[in-house]
Amino acid sequence: MHRDGDHSAAYVVLRTDDPELSGHGLTFTIGRGNDLAAEAARQQARPLLGRRVDDLAADPGAVYRTLTADTQLRWLGPEKGLVHLSLAAVLNAVWDLAARRAGKPLWRLLTDMSPTQLVDVADLRYLSDAITRQEAIELLSRLAPGRYERIATLERTGYPAYTTSAGWLGHDDAKLRRLCQEAIDAGYRHIKLKVGASLADDVRRCRIVREAIGPQCDLMIDANQVWDVPQAIEWVQALAEFRPLWIEEPTSPDDILGHAKIRSEVAPIGVATGEHAHNRVMFKQLIVAGAIDYCQIDACRLASVNENLAVLLLAAKYGVPVCPHAGGVGLCEMVQHLSVFDYVAVSGSLHNRVTEYVDHLHEHFVDPCVVRDAAYVLPAAPGYSTRMHEASVARYRYPDGAYWRAAAGDRPSPGTSAS
Amino acid sequence: MHRDGDHSAAYVVLRTDDPELSGHGLTFTIGRGNDLAAEAARQQARPLLGRRVDDLAADPGAVYRTLTADTQLRWLGPEKGLVHLSLAAVLNAVWDLAARRAGKPLWRLLTDMSPTQLVDVADLRYLSDAITRQEAIELLSRLAPGRYERIATLERTGYPAYTTSAGWLGHDDAKLRRLCQEAIDAGYRHIKLKVGASLADDVRRCRIVREAIGPQCDLMIDANQVWDVPQAIEWVQALAEFRPLWIEEPTSPDDILGHAKIRSEVAPIGVATGEHAHNRVMFKQLIVAGAIDYCQIDACRLASVNENLAVLLLAAKYGVPVCPHAGGVGLCEMVQHLSVFDYVAVSGSLHNRVTEYVDHLHEHFVDPCVVRDAAYVLPAAPGYSTRMHEASVARYRYPDGAYWRAAAGDRPSPGTSAS
Repeated sequence: MHRDGDHSAAYVVLRTDDPELSGHGLTFTIGRGNDLAAEAARQQARPLLGRRVDDLAADPGAVYRTLTADTQLRWLGPEKGLVHLSLAAVLNAVWDLAARRAGKPLWRLLTDMSPTQLVDVADLRYLSDAITRQEAIELLSRLAPGRYERIATLERTGYPAYTTSAGWLGHDDAKLRRLCQEAIDAGYRHIKLKVGASLADDVRRCRIVREAIGPQCDLMIDANQVWDVPQAIEWVQALAEFRPLWIEEPTSPDDILGHAKIRSEVAPIGVATGEHAHNRVMFKQLIVAGAIDYCQIDACRLASVNENLAVLLLAAKYGVPVCPHAGGVGLCEMVQHLSVFDYVAVSGSLHNRVTEYVDHLHEHFVDPCVVRDAAYVLPAAPGYSTRMHEASVARYRYPDGAYWRAAAGDRPSPGTSAS
Repeated sequence: MHRDGDHSAAYVVLRTDDPELSGHGLTFTIGRGNDLAAEAARQQARPLLGRRVDDLAADPGAVYRTLTADTQLRWLGPEKGLVHLSLAAVLNAVWDLAARRAGKPLWRLLTDMSPTQLVDVADLRYLSDAITRQEAIELLSRLAPGRYERIATLERTGYPAYTTSAGWLGHDDAKLRRLCQEAIDAGYRHIKLKVGASLADDVRRCRIVREAIGPQCDLMIDANQVWDVPQAIEWVQALAEFRPLWIEEPTSPDDILGHAKIRSEVAPIGVATGEHAHNRVMFKQLIVAGAIDYCQIDACRLASVNENLAVLLLAAKYGVPVCPHAGGVGLCEMVQHLSVFDYVAVSGSLHNRVTEYVDHLHEHFVDPCVVRDAAYVLPAAPGYSTRMHEASVARYRYPDGAYWRAAAGDRPSPGTSAS
């Protein structure tokens, strides 16, 4: 579906009077249109100019409500699409700023907040038919006593990760087999394979993966929205012999009832989706309608921590494991914080949970995520791990970075891509 | 919800080598962010530059597929939000161009197409679990014999309209009563009232309207998404004594299951939504799940005729009347064509159908819609009625039009609004 993606990001820096303190946030895009996201973020961040850092950091719920109260920009969604992606970039920078100011990694800032404080920053609007504010507080309160024990667990084990690096459609069979073996040798117990271009190819490639990883490890398959509902059911049933753990994005991300239908027809194969589910109202329905087995939140498609927290609460109440989407630019850096927080304070469980990891572009981040023995090592540096190296920003900034100036001769016209 | 709206539009003009032939399209916004929509449309229209007009006009389905195949821009939706609104502006201009070249009003261009041609331009992707291509062709074929008889009917009667001009929240009681009386005197049999700010006010205002219009006319109420689901049910039930025909946008436009729940609880009051339903997949679910009684398509939120046609086909198959959203900038001009086409070629029925009309901003259009005796008069001029007067464009173009230059002293900063 996204075959010519050109990994990009609209990157927001909130500067303060203190040269040592700034907030860094981003939203991930795949190329053209990144310039629009950057401009939207610039406009959306304007109400933050001149505000006291202490006030912003003390009440990220109020910041969220201020930025989402712009009804003129709301019209362009509402709460979806480009202006929601760019809003995530701005709010991710606000959260990074708050965590840096507190001298804590974001997950720790969150786990140090009380249930009431957390519910105050979560966006529960439109969710009260599924979870009330009181239920959310009670849910968090029940988990509160075990928080520090669970942190200690993760300090020992890390948070479980799976790899998508092996299973891209472009690899030939020999390379696929080799990458699977390397992943298993590195400790991974889950391998994800892209499917949907050709059923004959998918049968052959699933067989290769299943042979390579053995019967005990898990194979996930990912169709990136290519099918209509009846086709999804037929195709996934044809791959059932390879016992995939889940089918990811089998159809349009908007099709809640379609996912529910697919799930009922392909069970026990699970259904996973969420990287393109555009807001908490969509997740509410996916969860309550029993349309998904795995909830794949995204750090940039949802409106930062405030909206992701609402989805974590919904998922915990209804017992749906959250397995965040990552990869892209900086998504691994961000979602590790959300997964850790989910385990420590919201779900209290690692059962059936595993967070995506793609091993690329981490070199551009000052505090890159670290995956060891197929698990995310608990981030220790203050912030949301979103700060990029200044050299990376300077080189890849569109259109004036050295990368773009060098490439200009090869590119069709101005404005066709961005970074 | 949208209390400070500043009616705006991203306006697209496709020029050709023939100075007499151009295509005009727009998408409606309510202010800030319109500049982003305009820039997105500029980028999305680029593949049309240098193309032969005959080729574009001969195959608007191919144009649609070309413009929606940009997967980098697709990421920013997908198929929703800002890039979908701007895509509508571009495609509306393509359809206007095709109709002008054919020398026909758009509705006539469409009604002169065969069932197979129509299904070829409709976007049926992700819909096959609700309507197949073959079903769509058969549905249109069954209606084909009566097309010209129904055109003759509309030439006599026009297409029924309702007015929203009376019922804005800002009017005081005396003005509300007077505007209702004027609407009834002008022949309207449906009045729409905005609700949701205060229940006590809504009870009083509904009583005024019901008294003014009498028991035979229809009152519709519109909440503009302000409620959670339980609150919507409670509030609408409290207004049931005034027998509203429908409650419009009771909650988040994304909440398909919420609308279904509300509908089951407030019956026989109907549920209407769609002006913020962002694509055909949402409408598929609203229709198939029995979440709505009235389907309110929008000429700019959906991707022009291609996607609206798919929704008309779905609605016709499932027996849901289509009552388009209008108002804004140019929406009345556009949806009149879609309503006429729906009656003539798709649904074949006027039962329970009525199209919104708001009496403002028509003076900016070269071929403004004409409403007479509470009915849209069949548009006769070639095109999609989307062409604006050059003087209007020159005056209101952001930021260099005379209007903006004069207002600049009063406005907070550059880039905060757009036209």
